[in-house]
Amino acid sequence: MLSTTPRTTLGRSKERGSTDRDDLYEVLDTGLICHLGVVANGHPMVVPTGYGRVGDTLYLHGSTGAASLRAGTGTDVCVTVTHLDGIVLARSIFHHSVNYRSAMIYGRARLVTDPDERLLGLRALAEQLAPGQWDYVRRPSRKELAATAVLALSLEEASVKIRRGGPKDEDEDYDLPVWAGVLPLVTSWGTPEPDSVLPEGIEAPVHILHRE
Amino acid sequence: MLSTTPRTTLGRSKERGSTDRDDLYEVLDTGLICHLGVVANGHPMVVPTGYGRVGDTLYLHGSTGAASLRAGTGTDVCVTVTHLDGIVLARSIFHHSVNYRSAMIYGRARLVTDPDERLLGLRALAEQLAPGQWDYVRRPSRKELAATAVLALSLEEASVKIRRGGPKDEDEDYDLPVWAGVLPLVTSWGTPEPDSVLPEGIEAPVHILHRE
Repeated sequence: MLSTTPRTTLGRSKERGSTDRDDLYEVLDTGLICHLGVVANGHPMVVPTGYGRVGDTLYLHGSTGAASLRAGTGTDVCVTVTHLDGIVLARSIFHHSVNYRSAMIYGRARLVTDPDERLLGLRALAEQLAPGQWDYVRRPSRKELAATAVLALSLEEASVKIRRGGPKDEDEDYDLPVWAGVLPLVTSWGTPEPDSVLPEGIEAPVHILHRE
Repeated sequence: MLSTTPRTTLGRSKERGSTDRDDLYEVLDTGLICHLGVVANGHPMVVPTGYGRVGDTLYLHGSTGAASLRAGTGTDVCVTVTHLDGIVLARSIFHHSVNYRSAMIYGRARLVTDPDERLLGLRALAEQLAPGQWDYVRRPSRKELAATAVLALSLEEASVKIRRGGPKDEDEDYDLPVWAGVLPLVTSWGTPEPDSVLPEGIEAPVHILHRE
Protein backbone atom coordinates (compact mmCIF):
# COMPACT_ATOMS: atom_id res chain seq x y z
CA MET A 1 0.00 0.00 0.00
CA LEU A 2 1.13 3.53 -0.71
CA SER A 3 1.13 5.97 2.17
CA THR A 4 -1.51 8.68 2.39
CA THR A 5 -0.30 12.20 3.07
CA PRO A 6 -1.86 15.57 2.19
CA ARG A 7 0.31 15.71 -0.92
CA THR A 8 -0.53 12.22 -2.17
CA THR A 9 -4.25 12.40 -1.44
CA LEU A 10 -5.91 13.24 -4.71
CA GLY A 11 -8.18 16.25 -4.73
CA ARG A 12 -9.63 15.59 -8.18
CA SER A 13 -10.61 12.44 -10.07
CA LYS A 14 -10.15 10.18 -7.06
CA GLU A 15 -11.30 7.19 -9.13
CA ARG A 16 -8.04 7.44 -11.08
CA GLY A 17 -5.91 7.10 -7.98
CA SER A 18 -4.18 3.86 -7.14
CA THR A 19 -2.81 2.97 -3.73
CA ASP A 20 -1.29 -0.26 -5.01
CA ARG A 21 2.49 -0.31 -4.64
CA ASP A 22 2.77 -2.70 -7.60
CA ASP A 23 1.21 -0.03 -9.82
CA LEU A 24 3.90 2.39 -8.66
CA TYR A 25 6.64 -0.10 -9.50
CA GLU A 26 5.08 -0.82 -12.89
CA VAL A 27 4.89 2.87 -13.85
CA LEU A 28 8.48 3.46 -12.74
CA ASP A 29 10.00 0.29 -14.16
CA THR A 30 8.54 0.75 -17.64
CA GLY A 31 9.55 4.41 -17.91
CA LEU A 32 12.69 5.87 -19.45
CA ILE A 33 12.94 9.41 -18.11
CA CYS A 34 11.31 11.37 -15.33
CA HIS A 35 10.60 15.06 -14.82
CA LEU A 36 12.41 16.33 -11.73
CA GLY A 37 10.86 19.33 -10.02
CA VAL A 38 12.89 21.50 -7.67
CA VAL A 39 12.60 24.99 -6.25
CA ALA A 40 15.64 27.01 -7.38
CA ASN A 41 15.97 30.58 -6.07
CA GLY A 42 12.29 30.47 -5.13
CA HIS A 43 11.16 29.44 -8.60
CA PRO A 44 9.94 26.04 -9.79
CA MET A 45 12.19 24.27 -12.28
CA VAL A 46 11.24 21.08 -14.12
CA VAL A 47 14.05 19.10 -15.73
CA PRO A 48 13.81 15.88 -17.76
CA THR A 49 16.38 13.38 -16.49
CA GLY A 50 17.13 9.69 -16.11
CA TYR A 51 16.39 7.57 -13.06
CA GLY A 52 16.62 4.04 -11.74
CA ARG A 53 14.85 2.09 -9.00
CA VAL A 54 16.28 -0.30 -6.41
CA GLY A 55 13.58 -1.54 -4.05
CA ASP A 56 11.92 1.49 -2.52
CA THR A 57 14.64 3.94 -3.51
CA LEU A 58 14.76 5.99 -6.68
CA TYR A 59 18.18 7.10 -7.91
CA LEU A 60 18.87 10.21 -9.96
CA HIS A 61 22.20 11.48 -11.21
CA GLY A 62 23.85 14.32 -12.98
CA SER A 63 26.98 16.29 -13.28
CA THR A 64 28.26 17.55 -9.95
CA GLY A 65 27.94 21.03 -11.50
CA ALA A 66 24.27 20.84 -12.59
CA ALA A 67 22.09 23.57 -11.08
CA SER A 68 19.03 21.34 -10.82
CA LEU A 69 20.93 18.77 -8.77
CA ARG A 70 22.45 21.41 -6.51
CA ALA A 71 18.95 22.79 -5.90
CA GLY A 72 17.54 19.31 -5.31
CA THR A 73 20.05 18.01 -2.78
CA GLY A 74 18.74 18.02 0.76
CA THR A 75 15.64 19.92 -0.30
CA ASP A 76 12.20 18.84 -1.35
CA VAL A 77 11.82 17.49 -4.84
CA CYS A 78 8.95 16.06 -6.85
CA VAL A 79 9.71 13.37 -9.42
CA THR A 80 7.01 12.61 -11.97
CA VAL A 81 7.01 9.73 -14.47
CA THR A 82 4.27 9.77 -17.11
CA HIS A 83 3.25 7.27 -19.77
CA LEU A 84 0.83 8.64 -22.35
CA ASP A 85 -1.14 5.67 -23.70
CA GLY A 86 -3.75 7.27 -25.91
CA ILE A 87 -6.05 10.16 -26.70
CA VAL A 88 -9.63 9.76 -25.48
CA LEU A 89 -11.95 11.16 -28.13
CA ALA A 90 -15.34 12.01 -26.68
CA ARG A 91 -18.56 13.33 -28.21
CA SER A 92 -17.89 16.77 -26.68
CA ILE A 93 -14.69 18.81 -26.38
CA PHE A 94 -15.16 19.01 -22.61
CA HIS A 95 -14.88 15.25 -22.13
CA HIS A 96 -11.78 14.78 -24.25
CA SER A 97 -9.06 13.24 -22.14
CA VAL A 98 -5.95 11.08 -22.27
CA ASN A 99 -5.25 7.57 -21.14
CA TYR A 100 -2.12 7.62 -19.06
CA ARG A 101 -0.23 6.12 -16.15
CA SER A 102 1.69 8.50 -13.95
CA ALA A 103 3.58 8.44 -10.67
CA MET A 104 4.54 11.39 -8.51
CA ILE A 105 7.12 10.96 -5.77
CA TYR A 106 7.68 13.61 -3.14
CA GLY A 107 10.55 13.77 -0.73
CA ARG A 108 13.90 15.10 0.28
CA ALA A 109 16.66 13.91 -2.01
CA ARG A 110 19.76 12.56 -0.31
CA LEU A 111 23.25 12.91 -1.83
CA VAL A 112 24.70 9.40 -1.94
CA THR A 113 28.26 9.25 -0.64
CA ASP A 114 28.77 5.54 0.10
CA PRO A 115 30.83 4.14 -2.81
CA ASP A 116 28.87 0.88 -2.98
CA GLU A 117 25.51 2.61 -3.00
CA ARG A 118 26.76 5.07 -5.63
CA LEU A 119 27.63 2.15 -7.91
CA LEU A 120 24.30 0.48 -7.15
CA GLY A 121 22.45 3.67 -8.08
CA LEU A 122 24.45 4.27 -11.25
CA ARG A 123 23.91 0.69 -12.34
CA ALA A 124 20.14 1.06 -11.79
CA LEU A 125 20.19 4.32 -13.78
CA ALA A 126 22.09 2.71 -16.66
CA GLU A 127 19.92 -0.41 -16.72
CA GLN A 128 16.72 1.68 -16.76
CA LEU A 129 17.76 3.45 -19.97
CA ALA A 130 19.79 0.70 -21.56
CA PRO A 131 19.34 -2.75 -20.01
CA GLY A 132 22.31 -5.03 -20.60
CA GLN A 133 24.82 -2.27 -21.16
CA TRP A 134 26.33 -2.28 -17.66
CA ASP A 135 27.85 -5.71 -18.29
CA TYR A 136 28.66 -4.97 -21.95
CA VAL A 137 30.55 -1.65 -22.04
CA ARG A 138 33.34 -0.07 -20.00
CA ARG A 139 32.24 0.75 -16.46
CA PRO A 140 32.85 4.14 -14.82
CA SER A 141 36.44 5.04 -13.97
CA ARG A 142 37.40 6.65 -10.67
CA LYS A 143 37.54 10.03 -12.39
CA GLU A 144 34.14 9.58 -14.01
CA LEU A 145 32.64 8.52 -10.69
CA ALA A 146 34.02 11.66 -9.05
CA ALA A 147 32.32 13.83 -11.67
CA THR A 148 28.91 12.24 -11.10
CA ALA A 149 26.48 13.20 -8.34
CA VAL A 150 24.06 10.43 -7.32
CA LEU A 151 20.87 11.36 -5.48
CA ALA A 152 18.55 8.96 -3.64
CA LEU A 153 14.85 9.54 -3.08
CA SER A 154 12.68 7.30 -0.95
CA LEU A 155 9.48 6.02 -2.55
CA GLU A 156 7.71 6.41 0.80
CA GLU A 157 5.54 9.34 -0.30
CA ALA A 158 4.14 8.62 -3.73
CA SER A 159 0.91 8.73 -5.65
CA VAL A 160 -0.14 6.93 -8.80
CA LYS A 161 -2.82 7.97 -11.24
CA ILE A 162 -4.06 5.76 -14.06
CA ARG A 163 -6.76 6.37 -16.65
CA ARG A 164 -7.80 3.59 -18.99
CA GLY A 165 -10.76 2.95 -21.25
CA GLY A 166 -13.13 4.90 -23.47
CA PRO A 167 -14.77 8.30 -23.14
CA LYS A 168 -17.38 9.18 -20.53
CA ASP A 169 -19.90 11.42 -22.23
CA GLU A 170 -22.94 13.38 -21.13
CA ASP A 171 -26.09 11.26 -21.39
CA GLU A 172 -27.65 13.46 -24.06
CA ASP A 173 -24.50 13.38 -26.23
CA TYR A 174 -24.62 9.63 -26.90
CA ASP A 175 -27.19 10.27 -29.64
CA LEU A 176 -24.85 12.56 -31.60
CA PRO A 177 -23.72 11.13 -34.95
CA VAL A 178 -20.10 11.42 -33.86
CA TRP A 179 -17.37 8.78 -33.70
CA ALA A 180 -15.94 8.34 -30.21
CA GLY A 181 -13.26 6.10 -28.79
CA VAL A 182 -9.55 5.96 -28.12
CA LEU A 183 -6.62 6.66 -30.43
CA PRO A 184 -3.79 4.62 -28.92
CA LEU A 185 -0.28 6.02 -28.77
CA VAL A 186 2.33 3.35 -29.40
CA THR A 187 5.98 3.66 -28.46
CA SER A 188 8.44 1.20 -29.99
CA TRP A 189 12.13 0.78 -30.68
CA GLY A 190 13.46 1.52 -34.15
CA THR A 191 16.37 -0.14 -35.93
CA PRO A 192 19.68 0.46 -34.12
CA GLU A 193 21.83 3.05 -35.94
CA PRO A 194 25.55 2.26 -35.72
CA ASP A 195 28.00 5.02 -34.80
CA SER A 196 29.55 6.40 -38.02
CA VAL A 197 33.04 5.35 -36.92
CA LEU A 198 32.09 1.83 -35.76
CA PRO A 199 34.55 -0.68 -37.26
CA GLU A 200 33.02 -3.22 -39.63
CA GLY A 201 32.23 -6.60 -38.12
CA ILE A 202 30.93 -5.37 -34.77
CA GLU A 203 27.26 -6.33 -34.63
CA ALA A 204 24.71 -4.95 -32.20
CA PRO A 205 24.26 -7.38 -29.30
CA VAL A 206 20.95 -9.15 -28.67
CA HIS A 207 19.97 -6.89 -25.77
CA ILE A 208 19.99 -3.92 -28.15
CA LEU A 209 18.72 -5.64 -31.32
CA HIS A 210 15.80 -7.30 -29.58
CA ARG A 211 14.99 -4.86 -26.82
CA GLU A 212 11.40 -5.16 -25.64
CA MET B 1 15.68 34.73 -30.97
CA LEU B 2 14.91 33.50 -27.49
CA SER B 3 15.65 35.85 -24.63
CA THR B 4 18.59 35.26 -22.34
CA THR B 5 17.94 35.40 -18.62
CA PRO B 6 19.74 33.76 -15.70
CA ARG B 7 17.15 30.95 -15.78
CA THR B 8 17.39 30.27 -19.50
CA THR B 9 21.16 30.50 -19.74
CA LEU B 10 22.43 26.95 -19.74
CA GLY B 11 24.97 26.10 -17.11
CA ARG B 12 25.87 22.69 -18.55
CA SER B 13 26.15 21.31 -22.07
CA LYS B 14 25.88 24.69 -23.70
CA GLU B 15 26.35 23.12 -27.13
CA ARG B 16 22.91 21.55 -26.74
CA GLY B 17 21.19 24.88 -26.26
CA SER B 18 19.24 26.53 -29.03
CA THR B 19 18.26 30.19 -29.11
CA ASP B 20 16.17 29.74 -32.25
CA ARG B 21 12.50 30.58 -31.69
CA ASP B 22 11.52 28.16 -34.49
CA ASP B 23 13.06 25.30 -32.48
CA LEU B 24 10.89 26.32 -29.51
CA TYR B 25 7.76 26.29 -31.68
CA GLU B 26 8.71 22.93 -33.20
CA VAL B 27 9.21 21.30 -29.79
CA LEU B 28 5.92 22.70 -28.49
CA ASP B 29 3.83 22.10 -31.60
CA THR B 30 4.81 18.44 -31.96
CA GLY B 31 4.23 17.61 -28.28
CA LEU B 32 1.10 16.22 -26.67
CA ILE B 33 1.50 16.91 -22.95
CA CYS B 34 3.74 19.07 -20.81
CA HIS B 35 4.96 18.79 -17.23
CA LEU B 36 3.78 21.78 -15.21
CA GLY B 37 5.91 22.69 -12.22
CA VAL B 38 4.51 24.83 -9.41
CA VAL B 39 5.45 25.54 -5.82
CA ALA B 40 2.55 24.44 -3.60
CA ASN B 41 2.86 25.10 0.13
CA GLY B 42 6.57 25.60 -0.34
CA HIS B 43 7.05 22.25 -2.09
CA PRO B 44 7.66 21.57 -5.77
CA MET B 45 4.88 19.74 -7.58
CA VAL B 46 5.16 18.43 -11.14
CA VAL B 47 1.91 17.57 -12.92
CA PRO B 48 1.47 16.17 -16.45
CA THR B 49 -1.16 18.17 -18.30
CA GLY B 50 -2.31 19.31 -21.73
CA TYR B 51 -1.40 22.60 -23.39
CA GLY B 52 -1.85 24.57 -26.58
CA ARG B 53 0.03 27.40 -28.28
CA VAL B 54 -1.28 30.53 -29.98
CA GLY B 55 1.57 32.75 -31.18
CA ASP B 56 3.79 33.46 -28.21
CA THR B 57 1.28 32.38 -25.58
CA LEU B 58 0.94 28.92 -24.10
CA TYR B 59 -2.47 27.93 -22.74
CA LEU B 60 -3.05 25.43 -19.93
CA HIS B 61 -6.35 24.38 -18.45
CA GLY B 62 -7.87 22.34 -15.74
CA SER B 63 -10.76 22.05 -13.38
CA THR B 64 -11.37 25.24 -11.41
CA GLY B 65 -10.87 23.04 -8.32
CA ALA B 66 -7.46 21.55 -9.20
CA ALA B 67 -4.76 22.23 -6.61
CA SER B 68 -1.97 22.53 -9.20
CA LEU B 69 -3.85 25.26 -11.09
CA ARG B 70 -4.68 27.16 -7.91
CA ALA B 71 -1.00 27.06 -6.97
CA GLY B 72 0.06 28.09 -10.49
CA THR B 73 -2.19 31.12 -11.00
CA GLY B 74 -0.41 34.41 -10.54
CA THR B 75 2.72 32.68 -9.32
CA ASP B 76 5.81 31.42 -11.04
CA VAL B 77 5.51 28.22 -13.01
CA CYS B 78 7.86 26.17 -15.16
CA VAL B 79 6.40 24.26 -18.10
CA THR B 80 8.58 21.58 -19.67
CA VAL B 81 7.86 19.67 -22.88
CA THR B 82 10.17 16.77 -23.70
CA HIS B 83 10.48 14.50 -26.72
CA LEU B 84 12.65 11.44 -26.18
CA ASP B 85 14.02 10.43 -29.58
CA GLY B 86 16.47 7.65 -28.77
CA ILE B 87 18.96 6.08 -26.42
CA VAL B 88 22.61 6.90 -27.13
CA LEU B 89 24.67 3.77 -26.55
CA ALA B 90 28.31 4.62 -25.96
CA ARG B 91 31.41 2.51 -25.39
CA SER B 92 31.39 3.42 -21.71
CA ILE B 93 28.54 3.73 -19.20
CA PHE B 94 29.59 7.32 -18.44
CA HIS B 95 28.93 8.52 -21.99
CA HIS B 96 25.51 6.91 -22.34
CA SER B 97 22.96 9.58 -23.10
CA VAL B 98 19.64 10.22 -24.77
CA ASN B 99 18.68 12.08 -27.91
CA TYR B 100 15.91 14.49 -27.05
CA ARG B 101 14.29 17.82 -27.77
CA SER B 102 13.01 19.76 -24.79
CA ALA B 103 11.64 23.20 -24.03
CA MET B 104 11.38 24.88 -20.65
CA ILE B 105 9.19 27.93 -20.23
CA TYR B 106 9.35 30.10 -17.13
CA GLY B 107 6.88 32.75 -16.13
CA ARG B 108 3.92 33.90 -14.17
CA ALA B 109 0.72 32.23 -15.32
CA ARG B 110 -2.24 34.52 -15.89
CA LEU B 111 -5.83 33.40 -15.31
CA VAL B 112 -7.69 34.12 -18.53
CA THR B 113 -11.02 35.86 -17.93
CA ASP B 114 -11.86 37.33 -21.35
CA PRO B 115 -14.48 34.99 -22.91
CA ASP B 116 -12.99 35.18 -26.41
CA GLU B 117 -9.48 34.44 -25.20
CA ARG B 118 -10.79 31.58 -23.06
CA LEU B 119 -12.33 29.99 -26.18
CA LEU B 120 -9.15 30.64 -28.16
CA GLY B 121 -7.09 28.91 -25.48
CA LEU B 122 -9.45 25.95 -25.13
CA ARG B 123 -9.49 25.50 -28.88
CA ALA B 124 -5.69 25.49 -28.98
CA LEU B 125 -5.63 22.95 -26.14
CA ALA B 126 -8.11 20.67 -27.91
CA GLU B 127 -6.37 20.95 -31.27
CA GLN B 128 -2.99 20.13 -29.72
CA LEU B 129 -4.24 16.79 -28.37
CA ALA B 130 -6.79 16.00 -31.04
CA PRO B 131 -6.56 18.10 -34.20
CA GLY B 132 -9.84 18.31 -36.09
CA GLN B 133 -12.04 17.56 -33.12
CA TRP B 134 -13.03 21.17 -32.32
CA ASP B 135 -15.03 21.36 -35.54
CA TYR B 136 -16.28 17.75 -35.31
CA VAL B 137 -17.74 17.28 -31.81
CA ARG B 138 -19.98 19.31 -29.53
CA ARG B 139 -18.27 22.49 -28.29
CA PRO B 140 -18.23 23.54 -24.64
CA SER B 141 -21.50 24.63 -23.07
CA ARG B 142 -21.77 27.67 -20.83
CA LYS B 143 -21.76 25.39 -17.78
CA GLU B 144 -18.70 23.48 -19.00
CA LEU B 145 -16.88 26.72 -19.72
CA ALA B 146 -17.61 27.92 -16.18
CA ALA B 147 -16.06 24.75 -14.74
CA THR B 148 -12.82 25.17 -16.68
CA ALA B 149 -9.92 27.39 -15.67
CA VAL B 150 -7.74 28.60 -18.52
CA LEU B 151 -4.23 29.83 -17.79
CA ALA B 152 -1.98 31.79 -20.14
CA LEU B 153 1.80 31.76 -20.03
CA SER B 154 3.99 34.00 -22.17
CA LEU B 155 6.75 32.30 -24.16
CA GLU B 156 9.01 35.26 -23.46
CA GLU B 157 11.35 33.38 -21.11
CA ALA B 158 12.11 30.01 -22.59
CA SER B 159 15.02 27.72 -23.30
CA VAL B 160 15.39 24.85 -25.72
CA LYS B 161 17.77 21.92 -25.51
CA ILE B 162 18.32 19.46 -28.30
CA ARG B 163 20.67 16.49 -28.54
CA ARG B 164 20.99 14.59 -31.79
CA GLY B 165 23.49 12.13 -33.23
CA GLY B 166 25.74 9.34 -32.05
CA PRO B 167 27.82 8.83 -28.92
CA LYS B 168 30.86 10.91 -28.00
CA ASP B 169 33.36 8.51 -26.47
CA GLU B 170 36.76 8.86 -24.82
CA ASP B 171 39.55 8.60 -27.39
CA GLU B 172 40.95 5.40 -25.90
CA ASP B 173 37.53 3.68 -25.91
CA TYR B 174 37.10 3.72 -29.68
CA ASP B 175 39.31 0.62 -29.87
CA LEU B 176 36.99 -1.42 -27.64
CA PRO B 177 35.24 -4.30 -29.43
CA VAL B 178 31.87 -2.83 -28.44
CA TRP B 179 28.88 -1.86 -30.58
CA ALA B 180 27.95 1.79 -30.23
CA GLY B 181 25.24 3.91 -31.78
CA VAL B 182 21.69 5.04 -31.26
CA LEU B 183 18.57 3.02 -30.54
CA PRO B 184 15.74 5.21 -31.87
CA LEU B 185 12.50 5.52 -29.96
CA VAL B 186 9.53 5.71 -32.29
CA THR B 187 6.11 7.04 -31.31
CA SER B 188 3.18 6.30 -33.58
CA TRP B 189 -0.61 6.14 -33.58
CA GLY B 190 -2.32 2.77 -33.23
CA THR B 191 -5.65 1.70 -34.73
CA PRO B 192 -8.56 3.77 -33.37
CA GLU B 193 -10.60 1.77 -30.83
CA PRO B 194 -14.33 2.60 -31.01
CA ASP B 195 -16.26 3.28 -27.81
CA SER B 196 -18.09 0.08 -26.77
CA VAL B 197 -21.48 1.77 -27.11
CA LEU B 198 -20.80 3.43 -30.47
CA PRO B 199 -23.74 2.74 -32.84
CA GLU B 200 -22.93 0.73 -35.95
CA GLY B 201 -22.35 2.73 -39.08
CA ILE B 202 -20.40 5.60 -37.52
CA GLU B 203 -16.90 5.45 -38.96
CA ALA B 204 -13.87 7.26 -37.57
CA PRO B 205 -13.29 10.49 -39.53
CA VAL B 206 -10.19 11.01 -41.63
CA HIS B 207 -8.52 13.32 -39.09
CA ILE B 208 -8.53 10.45 -36.58
CA LEU B 209 -7.95 7.51 -38.96
CA HIS B 210 -5.04 9.16 -40.73
CA ARG B 211 -3.55 11.32 -38.01
CA GLU B 212 0.08 12.09 -38.63
